[in-house]
Amino acid sequence: MINARVIVTLKNGVLDPQGKAIEGALHGLGFTGLSGARQGKVFDLALDTDDRAKAEADVAAMCEKLLANMVIENYAIELN
Amino acid sequence: MINARVIVTLKNGVLDPQGKAIEGALHGLGFTGLSGARQGKVFDLALDTDDRAKAEADVAAMCEKLLANMVIENYAIELN
Repeated sequence: MINARVIVTLKNGVLDPQGKAIEGALHGLGFTGLSGARQGKVFDLALDTDDRAKAEADVAAMCEKLLANMVIENYAIELN
Repeated sequence: MINARVIVTLKNGVLDPQGKAIEGALHGLGFTGLSGARQGKVFDLALDTDDRAKAEADVAAMCEKLLANMVIENYAIELN
């Protein structure tokens, strides 16, 4: 069993309205020392294999087919 | 300037319908070697300070007030 963590974030330059909303809310709560906020997604996946190369390849394929929108998002894979 | 990454995930035992939906969709795409999927949030914050202790404390307060639902979620902070 291999556990994989995928972090999906917006590519640089892509507008992040959700991040802007969070930044505004945090300023409203008094956190003035904040000059930027961007939000992304994290996926924790349990894989039924002990082959790390296969796990990496499978998770990359999962990202490209479903977990990340490859036009506007990047993904990073960590295997534990 | 310090960049902080916050990862917010559901506590163990909390039902994750979104994760279940992703798991089902990935199985439908032919990824049968997957025995679990859970989704969380990631926040990349730019902080106007060079004081790491202050940054850590501020981000923890941001998590407890806004970014995480402390009843059902955990948060982890990474400072870069």
